[in-house]
Amino acid sequence: MPSSFASWSAEFRPRVEAELDELLPAVEESPRRLHEALRHAVFAGGKRVRPLLTVLAGAETRTALRAGACVELIHTYSLVHDDLPALDDDDLRRGRPTVHRAYDEATAILTGDSLLTLGLSTLAALPLESAGAARAVALVGEAIGTRGMIGGQMEDLEAEKNWPSEPEAALERIHRLKTGALLVASVRLGGLCQGVSEAEDTRLRELGERVGLLFQIGDDILDVEGTSESLGKTAGKDAASEKLTYPGLYGLDESRRLRSAVHAEALDRAATLPQAEIWRDFLDFLVERSS
Amino acid sequence: MPSSFASWSAEFRPRVEAELDELLPAVEESPRRLHEALRHAVFAGGKRVRPLLTVLAGAETRTALRAGACVELIHTYSLVHDDLPALDDDDLRRGRPTVHRAYDEATAILTGDSLLTLGLSTLAALPLESAGAARAVALVGEAIGTRGMIGGQMEDLEAEKNWPSEPEAALERIHRLKTGALLVASVRLGGLCQGVSEAEDTRLRELGERVGLLFQIGDDILDVEGTSESLGKTAGKDAASEKLTYPGLYGLDESRRLRSAVHAEALDRAATLPQAEIWRDFLDFLVERSS
Repeated sequence: MPSSFASWSAEFRPRVEAELDELLPAVEESPRRLHEALRHAVFAGGKRVRPLLTVLAGAETRTALRAGACVELIHTYSLVHDDLPALDDDDLRRGRPTVHRAYDEATAILTGDSLLTLGLSTLAALPLESAGAARAVALVGEAIGTRGMIGGQMEDLEAEKNWPSEPEAALERIHRLKTGALLVASVRLGGLCQGVSEAEDTRLRELGERVGLLFQIGDDILDVEGTSESLGKTAGKDAASEKLTYPGLYGLDESRRLRSAVHAEALDRAATLPQAEIWRDFLDFLVERSS
Repeated sequence: MPSSFASWSAEFRPRVEAELDELLPAVEESPRRLHEALRHAVFAGGKRVRPLLTVLAGAETRTALRAGACVELIHTYSLVHDDLPALDDDDLRRGRPTVHRAYDEATAILTGDSLLTLGLSTLAALPLESAGAARAVALVGEAIGTRGMIGGQMEDLEAEKNWPSEPEAALERIHRLKTGALLVASVRLGGLCQGVSEAEDTRLRELGERVGLLFQIGDDILDVEGTSESLGKTAGKDAASEKLTYPGLYGLDESRRLRSAVHAEALDRAATLPQAEIWRDFLDFLVERSS
């Protein structure tokens, strides 16, 4: 049994990708251009963090692998739509052209729609007992709806236009909805696949919330560190800038302190889980990562 | 008991709309602009044909009403995305500004995403026994995926760029996928809500397929008749034009003959259903309608 997250995920990432390959229609099937675009979006070198969390929390079963693949389809839909010209207007993702650049805008819109439809439909068909599949759809559907991911995306767009009157609350809320909610759902979905108790589900939710925070604070800190290096600016300048980020609002030192506290809370929730060593290594990685 | 579709739907349309109102988040809830846009899209004076078909085939139960509302949310998502500048680029729908005109493009993309998510999630929560909710999601998910509605939309976009080598087959296929599939699913979903047998499901599917065809042939014929009047062109000229329509490919007379044949087949399937009189009146309306 591997004890590091790196070696554990090296084993399970290809199995997640095999599930994705099985779920996606073949490119030979009509409409070919659309089916090609789906695969362009999904097989783009992602780290597969969300499905791996589902598999890790879901005792590595085939059902958890399939559920994880659904989450990855849904995460990919959100990236394809976020990249569109009307939203973030990104030409590249992980060094490759985004779907609307590699194909066209209409195809990108329909690609996102297709991935969302396929992800939710496949969740509903999970082989789980006593309405488990329906609960899986409810869990993920709430996480990505207007009270979750889409709502966070909308509030983020609005915050760009008008600086929020309570920036700390807005920062917390936008991240919790925009990226946190689906991460939490990924972890809880794994628990649902193995039929955990309500107490265990609560623990997984609390763990997932902290994973989301560690990701976000880490991204924001890396952004400042990267900027400091490449532009020669001091961290202090970035911290004083008007960007809605943890270092921007709290400063770099306080952000690092916050990250450490959240890390400790996450370790506490993970300590009694099966595969606790893998969890610990993953949480350490989230704090130490450099990209 | 009303015996005409008009009086029957006058009773059930408000009940469908009450379900929609209950399912949609209140505009007071954040993000308000998004929740407003959802209601702008959904409460736009639609005829609610799809949910009414679900209710009619579903013995008018509360569950069928809810299922029908889900179908209407999903139908509305498809309209909002189809109207986008990158797709059909429509500024008006039923005389009102489309979502991307009334709000903006980003909001319209997220509105469609939200309606699709809410529609599929709510289907998964239908109070049906023995995995019925999961089958409801599978039924609708297939109808609207890349092998259904989205696939038809993609093929339609491609046919606009390149005239298909087999136009008759392309016409049939595009309509079957783009508009037919969700209509068929609407009818079958009603059956599923009341637990019909496999034979009855087949009958409902065959009926739904013919309803889809009657809609489409009727739309195409109305288009030509409207054009003949407004532009003073002869029907023969339109029939010879290169538009991928029934009159365009088969001529107006042959299209009317085809419509009569499909009408007779549909009446046959509806004859033994509960509420056969309402079905008959609805099918007659589809043939006789003037708008």
